[in-house]
Amino acid sequence: MANIGIAVVGAGYWGPNLVRNFAAADGCDVRWVCDLDHDRAARLADRFGVEKVTSDLGDILADPGVHGVAIATPARTHAGIASACIDAGKDVLIEKPLADTLAAGEAIVEKAEDAGVVLMTDHTFCYTSSVRHIRDLISDGGLGAFRYYDSVRINLGLVQADVDVIWDLAPHDLSILDFILPDAVTPVSVAAQGSDPLGVGHACIAYVTIEMSDGSIAHMHLNWLSPVKVRSVMIGGSDRMLVWDDIKPTQRLSIYDAGARVGDLSEPMRREALVSYRIGDMVAPALREIEALGLVATEFLTAIETRDAPETDGRSGLRVLRLLDAASRSLEAGGRPIKL
Amino acid sequence: MANIGIAVVGAGYWGPNLVRNFAAADGCDVRWVCDLDHDRAARLADRFGVEKVTSDLGDILADPGVHGVAIATPARTHAGIASACIDAGKDVLIEKPLADTLAAGEAIVEKAEDAGVVLMTDHTFCYTSSVRHIRDLISDGGLGAFRYYDSVRINLGLVQADVDVIWDLAPHDLSILDFILPDAVTPVSVAAQGSDPLGVGHACIAYVTIEMSDGSIAHMHLNWLSPVKVRSVMIGGSDRMLVWDDIKPTQRLSIYDAGARVGDLSEPMRREALVSYRIGDMVAPALREIEALGLVATEFLTAIETRDAPETDGRSGLRVLRLLDAASRSLEAGGRPIKL
Amino acid sequence: MANIGIAVVGAGYWGPNLVRNFAAADGCDVRWVCDLDHDRAARLADRFGVEKVTSDLGDILADPGVHGVAIATPARTHAGIASACIDAGKDVLIEKPLADTLAAGEAIVEKAEDAGVVLMTDHTFCYTSSVRHIRDLISDGGLGAFRYYDSVRINLGLVQADVDVIWDLAPHDLSILDFILPDAVTPVSVAAQGSDPLGVGHACIAYVTIEMSDGSIAHMHLNWLSPVKVRSVMIGGSDRMLVWDDIKPTQRLSIYDAGARVGDLSEPMRREALVSYRIGDMVAPALREIEALGLVATEFLTAIETRDAPETDGRSGLRVLRLLDAASRSLEAGGRPIKL
Amino acid sequence: MANIGIAVVGAGYWGPNLVRNFAAADGCDVRWVCDLDHDRAARLADRFGVEKVTSDLGDILADPGVHGVAIATPARTHAGIASACIDAGKDVLIEKPLADTLAAGEAIVEKAEDAGVVLMTDHTFCYTSSVRHIRDLISDGGLGAFRYYDSVRINLGLVQADVDVIWDLAPHDLSILDFILPDAVTPVSVAAQGSDPLGVGHACIAYVTIEMSDGSIAHMHLNWLSPVKVRSVMIGGSDRMLVWDDIKPTQRLSIYDAGARVGDLSEPMRREALVSYRIGDMVAPALREIEALGLVATEFLTAIETRDAPETDGRSGLRVLRLLDAASRSLEAGGRPIKL
Repeated sequence: MANIGIAVVGAGYWGPNLVRNFAAADGCDVRWVCDLDHDRAARLADRFGVEKVTSDLGDILADPGVHGVAIATPARTHAGIASACIDAGKDVLIEKPLADTLAAGEAIVEKAEDAGVVLMTDHTFCYTSSVRHIRDLISDGGLGAFRYYDSVRINLGLVQADVDVIWDLAPHDLSILDFILPDAVTPVSVAAQGSDPLGVGHACIAYVTIEMSDGSIAHMHLNWLSPVKVRSVMIGGSDRMLVWDDIKPTQRLSIYDAGARVGDLSEPMRREALVSYRIGDMVAPALREIEALGLVATEFLTAIETRDAPETDGRSGLRVLRLLDAASRSLEAGGRPIKL
Repeated sequence: MANIGIAVVGAGYWGPNLVRNFAAADGCDVRWVCDLDHDRAARLADRFGVEKVTSDLGDILADPGVHGVAIATPARTHAGIASACIDAGKDVLIEKPLADTLAAGEAIVEKAEDAGVVLMTDHTFCYTSSVRHIRDLISDGGLGAFRYYDSVRINLGLVQADVDVIWDLAPHDLSILDFILPDAVTPVSVAAQGSDPLGVGHACIAYVTIEMSDGSIAHMHLNWLSPVKVRSVMIGGSDRMLVWDDIKPTQRLSIYDAGARVGDLSEPMRREALVSYRIGDMVAPALREIEALGLVATEFLTAIETRDAPETDGRSGLRVLRLLDAASRSLEAGGRPIKL
Repeated sequence: MANIGIAVVGAGYWGPNLVRNFAAADGCDVRWVCDLDHDRAARLADRFGVEKVTSDLGDILADPGVHGVAIATPARTHAGIASACIDAGKDVLIEKPLADTLAAGEAIVEKAEDAGVVLMTDHTFCYTSSVRHIRDLISDGGLGAFRYYDSVRINLGLVQADVDVIWDLAPHDLSILDFILPDAVTPVSVAAQGSDPLGVGHACIAYVTIEMSDGSIAHMHLNWLSPVKVRSVMIGGSDRMLVWDDIKPTQRLSIYDAGARVGDLSEPMRREALVSYRIGDMVAPALREIEALGLVATEFLTAIETRDAPETDGRSGLRVLRLLDAASRSLEAGGRPIKL
Repeated sequence: MANIGIAVVGAGYWGPNLVRNFAAADGCDVRWVCDLDHDRAARLADRFGVEKVTSDLGDILADPGVHGVAIATPARTHAGIASACIDAGKDVLIEKPLADTLAAGEAIVEKAEDAGVVLMTDHTFCYTSSVRHIRDLISDGGLGAFRYYDSVRINLGLVQADVDVIWDLAPHDLSILDFILPDAVTPVSVAAQGSDPLGVGHACIAYVTIEMSDGSIAHMHLNWLSPVKVRSVMIGGSDRMLVWDDIKPTQRLSIYDAGARVGDLSEPMRREALVSYRIGDMVAPALREIEALGLVATEFLTAIETRDAPETDGRSGLRVLRLLDAASRSLEAGGRPIKL
């Protein structure tokens, strides 16, 4: 297999993870690390034996050995950098969210499609063993009819200056939802409520509710103001219900048998349910402990080679942006639901 | 101390707990068990050595040895039974919610005040070691400024035929909120969204959001459609944050030190927070394992004797009803926030 | 069904539980509560409507309406009380351990067998949903070949004055082992080591190891000196392994699929096992939340009526005593294994 | 600071972790990766930009730019490789255990001391935030008098062909014990019991008990035959007791307040302790999530530069070997305690 040349733009929090995973991937050569802070780029390059360092994107675009560019810079710069890469014929992987506005996202997606370059959104969670197991379970009918998605995603005081908590954390859930939902179930309205107790100028706590076309419901609790990290998602179906607790390594995924019982309990079962903590058996499937970003790298490299669209392409990034945009508009309107 | 005569009306799920706790209380004599199903009343009376059984409330009202009546019947019957008891000069303890409509609740409270009888709402959770510890922590300033209350209260398929999930489960959180919130913080609006995936005619899943006078926020996730029981409340303050997990007997209450760090992290702390699961120490205070309903019984008996208002009096039940009423109106209005 | 008369002797910690469960059982009449402390007996009788109270065992033995006597007094008094009951033709239920010495236990069992009275040991854990599920799983071959039983049973500083930690806590594990082990697997030696850091005169921390006839092993960590309660048992088989955590109400029993993999991992599986927290699926079966002592009461009442031996008869109590006796002798011998 | 040249010998499971951490350390240059499997060495070198690869230890010993050699090969080869390195004047870091026999370990330690080269044992756990916190707590008197160390360390079916479960897993606990125990507390005897249900020729399940000079006790449950990983250590003191659960990232360390209560409970406290799950407050200190092996690398580099003995020097490795040796002898003697 020919070696694929990769450049990583952005040496902040996520960049080192990209460099490490591309460096470990087969058939791939990380040629450049780029960052406005040249020292930071150099330190990162040194750790993984990357040869070239630059603060000038032009150096990368001019290198014919670079086939793909992975962008891990602040969201407001995604559109500009991606646009230049597309113009130079480079395939592009962009950290979530795809862009900082719906319009900018739409522009990039259209440009990439017109140019025939690969545009992939780094929806890392969609490459975890947990989310893939959930997607397969749903598509195989294992949960029965989809009823609700409820996420609690709260962080350790990591207040962002330039985006609110919805734009910071909701892309994870929205990309997961986009990935796992049956095709027939589509969002029809978005409502969002928030609170800014620190007075930083945007919501630090938010609740986002999405009404689906079939009457089912999705909900996210997004919160920066916590000294404990929570990554817990419950998904309910008519036959089974699951809890995905991403910081419980011994049992990330618990799938509960609900059966016909839910909503249809006999009197003795009701009495038992009142004093019990659980009804029905539970299964916690074995999941491989793999680094999802390694699969992201592989998926991007494969797309570069085969020219097939990656699983989380620009369009999926755009669908997430559309929901973020609606959530922002609802928040401004005091929580009034926004039709899509 | 003179012996206080008690009658328990309703021998269904909660009635036996009332009989057992009053029977175990000092200075108290359970004289009657009353239920429309005479056999059910008789079986309950037999278990705890209660002498008299009836299906006729009149028998109880006519017994001068009965000082207090504990009502554990369906909510729609509370107002009628309580009214008759008040007319007969009996003190009254009513299972939550106080009544099935705001108007009915207001009528009972006023009637009891006019008659000078004790009216207590059985907000059992307010008598748990956990809630009392939380209340003291907040009133002593231990959490700092109040920021959010977030509850997840979900049940094992116990769909109710006559009330929706908000009226079934939210009274717990609303009574706790009423009990622990600083006096200066009051609800200003209520929004509610729900889903009825089973088609039972009312919401089986609901989210209730309450905006407070100081910009803080309360939120409840109420859900019947789960095969696993969750009773988890997070309360955030400017100095500390707590998690109350009521089905984790070894560590019901966890109090996290947040300090100045939340929202004000230095760069190295931000970096650490990104890869950590927690910042700041955590304390899990020792709590006594006592049955809260035992304290409810004692509080009611004390109020009967001293004529002082109990901690959870009719007025507290009424404040809860007011929020339930607003939540119902928001649900009907498609989630539009209702001003109080 | 004829009503069976029961007397409860001992109104301390366990007595009230016995009274409550017999009082709630069908076809049973609790006629007497007996305790040397007459007031304590009277208070207990009053709570559950028991009519007669005494400090004199003779009153009970003389009452022809008493068919069965439940003994919940200190272990050193078991043999004397049981012997008198047997002489009077009463069936007997004895709290664990059956007696305070092996010789005393043997004497009671033989006497009861000679007299044809029911002798039941109150091995309460054998009547829990968890232990019964485990027993059935093992007898159905669900675990494969039995390999190990490992228990951690540690308590909240409840140092006993008259018995060591082995005699206090090991009866639970030994009775469970006796109940669940395949018939072909029998103990062949017992070793015990202990520590008495408080200087109370007997072990407060102990480890007991039992070698089985087939090379499998059982081990117990027994400890009084802990401020946290642990009740955790792991049982390994060739096909599956289970964890029983008795203070985790949402998931008491977790059954892990081990399959052929254990001890026979391919190189990629070895690599994965090194970085994983679990291999193989896990199932947590639904278990009914019932009070085991209620089943104990029913079993005793059934045995009184049918004259069939109860599941945990005197002989099972004696097998437990034999292991306790060997453990004591090993402890005295500095940990040298004692052959059975 | 001058750059220190490092060579890593062994590219199997642990080698890559060593290369990665030395590559990320300041003032250090990883010059060689060495493995008998040249391809494996080459792949590892490529991932982290290491220039030189060899299967011949002589290449490394001949390179004057190499100051320190990190050895991550099978235990039986440690002595030979280390000896050659010492002869060549290289400082040495050896993966645990220091050697596969006590005699071999003693020889290396003496040789290194005679030659004046640094000899460090890679007791990685001693560099975790958890163990360092525990050590400080004990040395500051925070636990009170030391009473017990109880470890459960069980693995996912990773049966080793060449060593038994004690030599595989106990070095972790023994090195931790060596690191945290007060100087005045020393092991006086070791007993070990094991089981080999798979018939692999050595113990796959083992229990090791160490009696201490002050009557305190240490115990380890070591087990390969589990599909779930457990890494749980309880340490009891007269004033506090701690639980270290290394696979619970949100709460690795829980420190319980025991106080005077343990062993000295009043009657009401006894009664409460019987129905409670915990007495006394608990504190879970904030711990930094850092990779311990990074600190190992730094400690080795510092020792190379300063010539001071590292915290986990050859002598500490030797003390661990001495206990392993005694455990093996006890196992052979059927569990008879071996005096040290």
